[in-house]
Amino acid sequence: MTFQKVSPQDIAWFEQQMPGRVFYGEDISSDYDHDEMTEYGHYMPDVVIQALSTEEVSKVLSYCNERLIPVTPRGAGTGLCGGCVAIHGGVVLSTEKMKRVLEVDTENMTATLEPGVLLMEFPNSLEGTGLFYPPDPGEKTATMGGNAMTNAGGMRAVRYGVTRDYILGMEVVLADGTVLHLGGKNVKTSSGYSLLDLMIGSEGTLAFLTQLTVKLVPEPRTNLSLLMPFDDLDACIGAVPKVLACGCDPTAVEFMEREVISCAETYLGKAFPDTSANAYLLVRLDGASVEALQNSIDTLTDLVLRLGAKDVLLADTDERKESIWTARGAFLEAIKGSTSTMDECDVVVPREDIPKFVHRMLEIAEEVGVRIRSFGHAGDGNLHIYVCRDDLGDEEWKEKVGRAMRLLYDEARVLSGNVSGEHGIGHAKKAFLAESLGEKQIELMRGIKKVFDPNGILNPGKVV
Amino acid sequence: MTFQKVSPQDIAWFEQQMPGRVFYGEDISSDYDHDEMTEYGHYMPDVVIQALSTEEVSKVLSYCNERLIPVTPRGAGTGLCGGCVAIHGGVVLSTEKMKRVLEVDTENMTATLEPGVLLMEFPNSLEGTGLFYPPDPGEKTATMGGNAMTNAGGMRAVRYGVTRDYILGMEVVLADGTVLHLGGKNVKTSSGYSLLDLMIGSEGTLAFLTQLTVKLVPEPRTNLSLLMPFDDLDACIGAVPKVLACGCDPTAVEFMEREVISCAETYLGKAFPDTSANAYLLVRLDGASVEALQNSIDTLTDLVLRLGAKDVLLADTDERKESIWTARGAFLEAIKGSTSTMDECDVVVPREDIPKFVHRMLEIAEEVGVRIRSFGHAGDGNLHIYVCRDDLGDEEWKEKVGRAMRLLYDEARVLSGNVSGEHGIGHAKKAFLAESLGEKQIELMRGIKKVFDPNGILNPGKVV
Repeated sequence: MTFQKVSPQDIAWFEQQMPGRVFYGEDISSDYDHDEMTEYGHYMPDVVIQALSTEEVSKVLSYCNERLIPVTPRGAGTGLCGGCVAIHGGVVLSTEKMKRVLEVDTENMTATLEPGVLLMEFPNSLEGTGLFYPPDPGEKTATMGGNAMTNAGGMRAVRYGVTRDYILGMEVVLADGTVLHLGGKNVKTSSGYSLLDLMIGSEGTLAFLTQLTVKLVPEPRTNLSLLMPFDDLDACIGAVPKVLACGCDPTAVEFMEREVISCAETYLGKAFPDTSANAYLLVRLDGASVEALQNSIDTLTDLVLRLGAKDVLLADTDERKESIWTARGAFLEAIKGSTSTMDECDVVVPREDIPKFVHRMLEIAEEVGVRIRSFGHAGDGNLHIYVCRDDLGDEEWKEKVGRAMRLLYDEARVLSGNVSGEHGIGHAKKAFLAESLGEKQIELMRGIKKVFDPNGILNPGKVV
Repeated sequence: MTFQKVSPQDIAWFEQQMPGRVFYGEDISSDYDHDEMTEYGHYMPDVVIQALSTEEVSKVLSYCNERLIPVTPRGAGTGLCGGCVAIHGGVVLSTEKMKRVLEVDTENMTATLEPGVLLMEFPNSLEGTGLFYPPDPGEKTATMGGNAMTNAGGMRAVRYGVTRDYILGMEVVLADGTVLHLGGKNVKTSSGYSLLDLMIGSEGTLAFLTQLTVKLVPEPRTNLSLLMPFDDLDACIGAVPKVLACGCDPTAVEFMEREVISCAETYLGKAFPDTSANAYLLVRLDGASVEALQNSIDTLTDLVLRLGAKDVLLADTDERKESIWTARGAFLEAIKGSTSTMDECDVVVPREDIPKFVHRMLEIAEEVGVRIRSFGHAGDGNLHIYVCRDDLGDEEWKEKVGRAMRLLYDEARVLSGNVSGEHGIGHAKKAFLAESLGEKQIELMRGIKKVFDPNGILNPGKVV
């Protein structure tokens, strides 16, 4: 596909349509040339447009489609695989100004909103309704649209499922400018192929998301967290499948190593409630009352003490809960702050195989001679793994990170895992996806891409 | 697309590959020329093949794909929209002999099985594990594969969701014979377009399902049902959104009219526990114990008595529960038995709009002058509506059923509903789907169909 450069005439047209919201040349902030993983390169778009409405998105797309100008959709730019970066130049079409919550329907228990609403802002719109939106990815400054387009998971997926499970409807704009309404407020359907599910996780390569209808659920009246320190890392991670199977219906089961906690303490300047152990499980329970959860607390405590936990710390006050979960939320930034640069891997494996995978990961760090830090959603079989460059030289880093990634993805494949649990593919993981799925599935995905976007202008160079 | 007829040479080849499992001519049972809705016509295939393995399916498909012979996948034939009927002749490829449960993995809480396993047989494989498979469509003699390919919903969808929510992985065979593995045991993924979700509900038009991995969940320790008789039908259906919003997390909220219950009593030769009222809600609750559910029972009882229920009957013994749910399970057959023939409509609307829809449905019966019976999943906004022919003459029936269906689908569209909640599209509802989704979405679906099945041999004439 040969794309066209954005010309001064094009810019004039954009400015006429959307005065004050078109940026080019020196006026483009350098923020737009990367996402949270600068390791994957810097790519400056020709022009950045901040759309305000579906109509504007439709105009920009049909204009660019006719002229073969690439359009890269972008939310808050908090991705980790280069998904919102304009690697072929052209237009970055940003949702950052499309941030209205259009409706909270308490009867149907749904909300309809624009894609630029931030995950951390959305709960404000639900205050007083008794309803909540369960998906809880770590990056709270991400947009809801970005979450939908990567099928983000988050902390509470063990109990509540991932973003896909909460999306009932979408308004999207095709590359040719056509506006489509997929799904709606209905809670079930068997009416043709699920174009809605095809959009979820498609990273803006099939259509541009302009509106989202999500499912809400009654907010649990109380929640509490149990922090379980283990001296032995193997025992810690080995306890995960047993915790999941004990009938306590945990909301979250997170795994953390001491080194990562130390990074977070330094980063936040705040002490973690316990630093006596090598590894920790953090389990959250939701319920009607602490009394109603007492059985589960007892069962879990007995279980993990038998499995090698040194203690079980109950966090049932807001202060205590916050000190733990704030640390958990800061892990990514904390690891980033501890190294010069890093590469990441977000594989998911069957939950039962999480101990095997962690074991192999530690071996790989040893074999390759590189510092690897990890944390994540043990209860979902999904770990976030960071290979840290520290003070390695260019050549050495390239060789070591390449080898470590290769070995990590190999192990995931052996365990029938997937390349990404929630961060997506972007341009950084395309080769690993192709290898993992095989030629035929990639060929089918390319065929689908062509059906939706025959000229290939939407987020080119991503996913497939 | 011009298809080829099955020749004697083709049959000889099939018989050589799968001796004893190839039927043609007079040897084909007349069961294979229709599904449960004979109203939609009888179509005899040229040949019926009962496959035993993925390898056989792959062989048959690649053979037929090269020769442009249509292949219609078929499970138990319990569908309601002609989805498994060979309207273009050719091969019916049946899964009825592929009925092994291959693995129950209690650690990962998954089961892997062949598509021909019947919904009513599957629980036998889970006995003693403490796990269960929540989807619970009314038709227990349907196959698990058929449930997946229509995204069946069932009674427990209010709490547990639909079949889509329980499918983690599939093995499918493309029209050209290629075997693909989609998903697996991983509980989350963001690794390219979700081909798995595209398969679910695709009614065998994109690929042939040969294996299924489903999610299991811990079985609730107890369940009970509340039967709520109302004299006023409007009050009864009007209570549904309030029941859903009262925080009791019901598993099922079913709506039934007295006339339908009477049909079921006649059909089963068994008395229903109550026949004093015009309309009923049936609510099921799952929980750890009857004590743990007491709060919910009290809340629901107070609520519905205030909303016009005459009484609340508690069914907490196996015998009482069975008498109610057996009647509920027999509704379709009972209505069928009460009329010469009938047509059905399976629309879904936002849950809040269920009272509006039922109200309109009663008006339509009056306006058109035809007997309409309905029951269904009020808690999901999904009603099954049967327009009964009774003793109407050919012309009159055709005119009345056409008009009633037109008005029913019009009302669903006004309420932003979908054409089918769980029965699918098949060939019977194609026109309504096209009208509901609009040209562009149908065009995209046709494009997707072409990517998967360029020759169009897989279940031709269905969905799009």
